[in-house]
Amino acid sequence: MTYCVGLQLDRGLVFLSDTRTNAGVDNISTYRKMHTWEVPGERTMMLMTAGNLATTQAVVSLLDERNLHHSDRDPTILSSPTMFQAARLIGKTLKDVIAEQRDGGPNAGSTFNATMIFGGQIKGGPSRLYMIYPEGNFVEAQADTPFFQIGETKYGRPILVRAYDQDMEFAKAVKLLMVSFDSTIRANLSVSTPLDLQIYESDSLKLGLTRRIEDTDADWRAVSDGWSDALRNAFDSLPDVTLDN
Amino acid sequence: MTYCVGLQLDRGLVFLSDTRTNAGVDNISTYRKMHTWEVPGERTMMLMTAGNLATTQAVVSLLDERNLHHSDRDPTILSSPTMFQAARLIGKTLKDVIAEQRDGGPNAGSTFNATMIFGGQIKGGPSRLYMIYPEGNFVEAQADTPFFQIGETKYGRPILVRAYDQDMEFAKAVKLLMVSFDSTIRANLSVSTPLDLQIYESDSLKLGLTRRIEDTDADWRAVSDGWSDALRNAFDSLPDVTLDN
Repeated sequence: MTYCVGLQLDRGLVFLSDTRTNAGVDNISTYRKMHTWEVPGERTMMLMTAGNLATTQAVVSLLDERNLHHSDRDPTILSSPTMFQAARLIGKTLKDVIAEQRDGGPNAGSTFNATMIFGGQIKGGPSRLYMIYPEGNFVEAQADTPFFQIGETKYGRPILVRAYDQDMEFAKAVKLLMVSFDSTIRANLSVSTPLDLQIYESDSLKLGLTRRIEDTDADWRAVSDGWSDALRNAFDSLPDVTLDN
Repeated sequence: MTYCVGLQLDRGLVFLSDTRTNAGVDNISTYRKMHTWEVPGERTMMLMTAGNLATTQAVVSLLDERNLHHSDRDPTILSSPTMFQAARLIGKTLKDVIAEQRDGGPNAGSTFNATMIFGGQIKGGPSRLYMIYPEGNFVEAQADTPFFQIGETKYGRPILVRAYDQDMEFAKAVKLLMVSFDSTIRANLSVSTPLDLQIYESDSLKLGLTRRIEDTDADWRAVSDGWSDALRNAFDSLPDVTLDN
């Protein structure tokens, strides 16, 4: 499986993805699911992928190839005038790749679907965050729903819903994502470290902090080891239940 | 959907179930999913159900009917010599009901599956806790895996895994289940109060505290309202992450 979260803050965007890919539980690999493009001072884009690895790699390769050999007839994400147009292009590419793999030939019996989180900023517009579906359509994050999750979303959701603040600092947002990932990794074998962190500061128009978080990372260990105790203390701090009524 | 948890403690068993049944999001009802049988001083049994409501109601009705009109040829859960035999009987009943509904006739296109948590004690044996599958087979809780969840299990799992202690008191166990249910109810519209609580004290051979927990229940409100703050405090208590390396 996979777990990726993209978070929209007042000060920018934070992306965290795991790296585990699996076909069954006896065939696991490490693949990067975080992809970035930038033209410093002009545009910065980040894409995280979940789902069929052949599909997501094909989409990213097609986007890259078009960037290298583009013509006026072939739009590219590096020439899209807005983030909305870039999201449309990614959505269409995703839909086309899935359609191509589905038609004819042998069929593994599994779906070729994939889902993506796409965010960034193009000069002249605000930073934006989208969730792109296998059907090629997409939704944008707004103040009421300021983050997107893909993959194994449920275990790590309660803490996101409760501790998110749109004016939180990047360091705190990263801590929040680490807690959310820790809950997920402990519950689902198909989500695992190392994690890829990418920060984007609004209006900087260049990639912010990029970090690979290994299982031995000091911050990760502090969060992962500390969260069990913190959660137990939180639980103990709740008033006792009375059972005699 | 549904959320039910059965917890095995040193001092007995604790069961908590929600009451929401839905066919789509526009057709919701309240149904009791907690069923109990007792012969005081001789046996006490509790059953929680998730899945197709027609299936689970048929299973419970068949078990009840056999209890009323039993013959030597028809085993009943009130005449089973052990909890293991009672679990086998429930599993077989469940499998038969599903098979009957699947064969012939119109088919809604949905499955008729159901999953159950069954626990209790029969004089002469220890208290036991089982998870019964639609296939009719079942597994028993042990010290390493001292609880079972059915229905929407993911949101409420992290706190169970971390705060469970096998020697915890009933009041604390109920608080733990309330936290787990609160996380689930906030995340999934198809799980909802009122909740049904049933406690069984080992070797008492009679039903312990039975309580319907409405949304206005003072203990429930204290846990539900307090957990957001407690969780935020727990999150704040974790060491900060350093972003400059």
